[in-house]
Amino acid sequence: MAKIYLTDTTLRDGSHTVSHQFSPEDVAKVAKALDEAGIDLIEIGHGDGLTGSTINYGFSNYKELDVIRAAAGVVKRAKVTVLLIPGIGSVEDLEEAVHAGATAVRVATHVTEADVAEQHIKAAKKMGLWTVGFLMMAHMADAERVLQEAKKMESYGADVVYCTDSAGAMLPADVTEKISLLKANLSIPIGFHSHNNLGLAIANSIAAVDAGATYIDGSLSGLGAGAGNTPTDTLVAVFNRMGLEHGADLYKTMDASTEALAPVLLSKGVTAQTNLDALICGYAGVYSSFMLHARRASARFGVDLRDILIELGRRRAVGGQEDWIIEVANEIAQNKVK
Amino acid sequence: MAKIYLTDTTLRDGSHTVSHQFSPEDVAKVAKALDEAGIDLIEIGHGDGLTGSTINYGFSNYKELDVIRAAAGVVKRAKVTVLLIPGIGSVEDLEEAVHAGATAVRVATHVTEADVAEQHIKAAKKMGLWTVGFLMMAHMADAERVLQEAKKMESYGADVVYCTDSAGAMLPADVTEKISLLKANLSIPIGFHSHNNLGLAIANSIAAVDAGATYIDGSLSGLGAGAGNTPTDTLVAVFNRMGLEHGADLYKTMDASTEALAPVLLSKGVTAQTNLDALICGYAGVYSSFMLHARRASARFGVDLRDILIELGRRRAVGGQEDWIIEVANEIAQNKVK
Repeated sequence: MAKIYLTDTTLRDGSHTVSHQFSPEDVAKVAKALDEAGIDLIEIGHGDGLTGSTINYGFSNYKELDVIRAAAGVVKRAKVTVLLIPGIGSVEDLEEAVHAGATAVRVATHVTEADVAEQHIKAAKKMGLWTVGFLMMAHMADAERVLQEAKKMESYGADVVYCTDSAGAMLPADVTEKISLLKANLSIPIGFHSHNNLGLAIANSIAAVDAGATYIDGSLSGLGAGAGNTPTDTLVAVFNRMGLEHGADLYKTMDASTEALAPVLLSKGVTAQTNLDALICGYAGVYSSFMLHARRASARFGVDLRDILIELGRRRAVGGQEDWIIEVANEIAQNKVK
Repeated sequence: MAKIYLTDTTLRDGSHTVSHQFSPEDVAKVAKALDEAGIDLIEIGHGDGLTGSTINYGFSNYKELDVIRAAAGVVKRAKVTVLLIPGIGSVEDLEEAVHAGATAVRVATHVTEADVAEQHIKAAKKMGLWTVGFLMMAHMADAERVLQEAKKMESYGADVVYCTDSAGAMLPADVTEKISLLKANLSIPIGFHSHNNLGLAIANSIAAVDAGATYIDGSLSGLGAGAGNTPTDTLVAVFNRMGLEHGADLYKTMDASTEALAPVLLSKGVTAQTNLDALICGYAGVYSSFMLHARRASARFGVDLRDILIELGRRRAVGGQEDWIIEVANEIAQNKVK
């Protein structure tokens, strides 16, 4: 399987959840954590993209260029990415975003209207940006039509083209059909962006990868419009379990949720959604009854709770045996396990 | 595809979420709503099954037999189902449950220990119960071993045998492998029970059905241990979208979440999890920006919000056009749309 590149959109699609009120300080905190976790593209800004801060889409209290500067000031490896919906934002807005530090753009249109992205994609390429074509509401067109529109974006110079399930309406079989056709007929990489309205965000991301997509979106704790996006934390865990190559570190991605994002959300009265204790139990293959004693052993021996659970899973522990948990924690503390 | 039979375990696995404190009144309210929604089996009782109310597993303030009576008193079509984990509960406990009104039992063992269920399954069959063998932590055994254990349960007389992903640790490919092997080698129907720790509960349920399972579990709003079970509401929506035959009504299942379960949870300080607005948008294939005007039109014309959204999806609406939404609501009110 080809390497997967992850885009995290917590700070863009997720900003719908906080009515577009991520401050430059919030963005710096979360973007830094995502960058350190190895996420490849970090999308930031208003939920509706450049200059989305209007009476129609909801005003932000913060200046878009300050937000971009905040991200660009802390991100060392990832591409600082902005969303441009032609008709909301313009080529001039994109130029300003680039001066503020953006290094990639996703140019988004309705799935049947790629044409309106031509000048924006061409301009973005001239500015030297990594340029992604983003076909929204992809469930509304059949696979053949999605391909036609994607080919247009490819012909304008897009580096990647996305099939975007904006309404969270696609089933895995739909994803397989659309991505397979794109893969068979395009020379550029294919991306997939999901929403979790039908509880299928992770499954559809797997289907997309199986069909040949190599760019996959998520957001920390699944923050995003509707039922939210694919949770990046869960996505990384599942991709690890599938043995896929990608650049992200699972623990650091989880930490970005709990240590960077959660306090930011709490300050706005919003709660993060992924149950990370449950995630690590599922990842390790141990029942939730292990959690209590594992947490105690983690504190007692000063070792990461997750390391204990994963090692217990490896040893195929069945019940929540306290003695065994202590033994494992002790061995990890003494570096006998790795 | 064969008909699917749904088991809802809100009132059993979901009782972990409320520390096993569903009262007989709570159970009557939710069980009645589930029965009216067309759920085939309604599982009730302590999260750890018959006589689970102990210092080890957590005391309930309510008598188990009162809870069973409460359900049996309101359920007209579904099977009132109890869980029996040999070692926690006994054959005598099951007899009392039957006297109180239970009509089905799930006899549960660790995936490699079907043997301990022999006397319980045989006794249950003698009592005339619909008897389900329930192989827990199925991710810990390979497909061949799961089959061996399932065959034992079949030989004891089980009517159905379940592959149970207690830890939420299975990937769709694991489910496909295990269920396919069971399907090819057993004469009785196959069931699947999922947890959502890896965000794959719905996807794994689809994989199970595709591989031949006909009994699928869920719980309202995904209530349950760990990250919760497969949300029954979402499951019904996805099965409808897949064109599968099953007995449940989508709206009534959603109503069971919002009108029966949510007030019960609220009284215990717990919030239901499924975003049903987002679910219906994904089901209808419309973007969440429709919601505001659709809600207003629903109130103005006295028609179900869900009918409006589904009709807008059918008409392939793209934006959240207010005029169009009013037109659709008006037509529904005048019975011009059905």
